[in-house]
Amino acid sequence: MRDLLPPGVALQGERGIAFVIAGPSGAGKSSVISALLARDPRLVFSVSVTTRPPRPHEVHGRDYYFVSAAEFDRLLAEGALLEWTEYQGHRYGTPKSEVVPRLEQGLDVVLNVEVRGALALKGAGLGHPVVLIFLVPPSWEELVRRVRGRGTEDEAALRERLRIARHELSCIPAFEYLVVNDELEKAVARVEAIIQAERMRVVRCA
Amino acid sequence: MRDLLPPGVALQGERGIAFVIAGPSGAGKSSVISALLARDPRLVFSVSVTTRPPRPHEVHGRDYYFVSAAEFDRLLAEGALLEWTEYQGHRYGTPKSEVVPRLEQGLDVVLNVEVRGALALKGAGLGHPVVLIFLVPPSWEELVRRVRGRGTEDEAALRERLRIARHELSCIPAFEYLVVNDELEKAVARVEAIIQAERMRVVRCA
Repeated sequence: MRDLLPPGVALQGERGIAFVIAGPSGAGKSSVISALLARDPRLVFSVSVTTRPPRPHEVHGRDYYFVSAAEFDRLLAEGALLEWTEYQGHRYGTPKSEVVPRLEQGLDVVLNVEVRGALALKGAGLGHPVVLIFLVPPSWEELVRRVRGRGTEDEAALRERLRIARHELSCIPAFEYLVVNDELEKAVARVEAIIQAERMRVVRCA
Repeated sequence: MRDLLPPGVALQGERGIAFVIAGPSGAGKSSVISALLARDPRLVFSVSVTTRPPRPHEVHGRDYYFVSAAEFDRLLAEGALLEWTEYQGHRYGTPKSEVVPRLEQGLDVVLNVEVRGALALKGAGLGHPVVLIFLVPPSWEELVRRVRGRGTEDEAALRERLRIARHELSCIPAFEYLVVNDELEKAVARVEAIIQAERMRVVRCA
C-alpha cells in the first residue's frame, strides 16, 4: 500500500495513537477497556497513579499504582506526570512513562482518566494524536442505578458522585466521540470501530 | 441517551451524513458499496448520471442514469447537479435529487464518484457532513493487474486509465480516510467501521 501513497502522506495508524476513555461513574469504562485490551494486541493500557486506597480485587500495577501522598508529591515535583486531577479527595495522575515510550514504539495507548484529565491530555503536546472518547450509560436513570448498585460508598459520597457526573456530562462537547454503553459487547464494538477508523485517517507526515 | 447530553450537542449520526467513496480504477468501489448497502438499511446509494454507454450488466437507475449529451446539458443548465466531471471523454454528475432530500430525511448517502467530484462535494455547501473515503488496491502492481483483468478496453485506454490513476493517488491528502481493499470482506468491514465511528462523533447543533 505504501507505494500508492504520495510523498509526505501516511496513515495515522502507522504511528502510536492515544485513545482516552472518560465518562461519569457507572459508564463502565474499566469493563470496556478490559475487553478492548484482551482483543487487540496493538493496544496497551496506561496504568494511572492514585492516592486512593485500592478497592477489593484491584491490583497494584494492573489497575492503578497505589501511592502515598508523599510519593505523589515527589512524582509531581519530578515532572513525571502528564496530567493529574483531584477527585473526591484523592489524587489521580498519568505517568509519562506509561504513555510516551509506548507511543514512540508505535503502540496505541488506552487511558482511563477523569474528564478533566482527558482535556489536559489533549493539550499536553504529546506529539501523537490524542482521541477523546466519552462513554455514557444509556440514560441518567441507568447511571444512578449503576452508581447505587456499586454500593461501595455511603449516601453522601453517592450524591457527590452524581453531582460530579452531571458536571462531567457538560464537558461532552470537548470530546470527539460519544459512545453509549447499553450492553458491554456493543459498547466494545463501538469503541473498536472508532479505533479502527482513526488508524485509517490520512495524515501528513512531519 | 438524549437526557445525558448538554444543550446544543448532538451525535453526528442523528442527521444524515454523505459518505463519498472515491479511488482509482481497480480499487473495487462498486463491490464495496454493494456490500455496504446490502447490510445497512440506513445507507442509500446516490445514482450518478453519465453520458457513457452502459457496460454489460449495468442497469439504468441502479448503476447510473444513462443520458444523452443533450440531456446532460439540460441538467447542468437547470442547476440539477451537485458536481460533475469529465473522464475519458464522458461526463459524470451527481444529481441533487439523489442526495439532498435523503440527507434531510436523516438517511446516510453513499456516493461513488471520481476523485475530483469527491473534492467538489466537500465544498458544495450541503449543510450536512461529507466524509471522504479513498479506496485503494493493496499495491500499484495489483492495481495494474485489476485494470488489465477488467478487459473492457484497448491498450491505449488502459494506459490512459493508469495515468489517471497515478494522478488520482496524488489527491489522497485531501481525503479523510484511506481504506485498503486487499480482500472485499475486510475492506467492507473497514468502511463500516468508519461509518459507525462518524455517526458517534460529537457535534454542536446549528
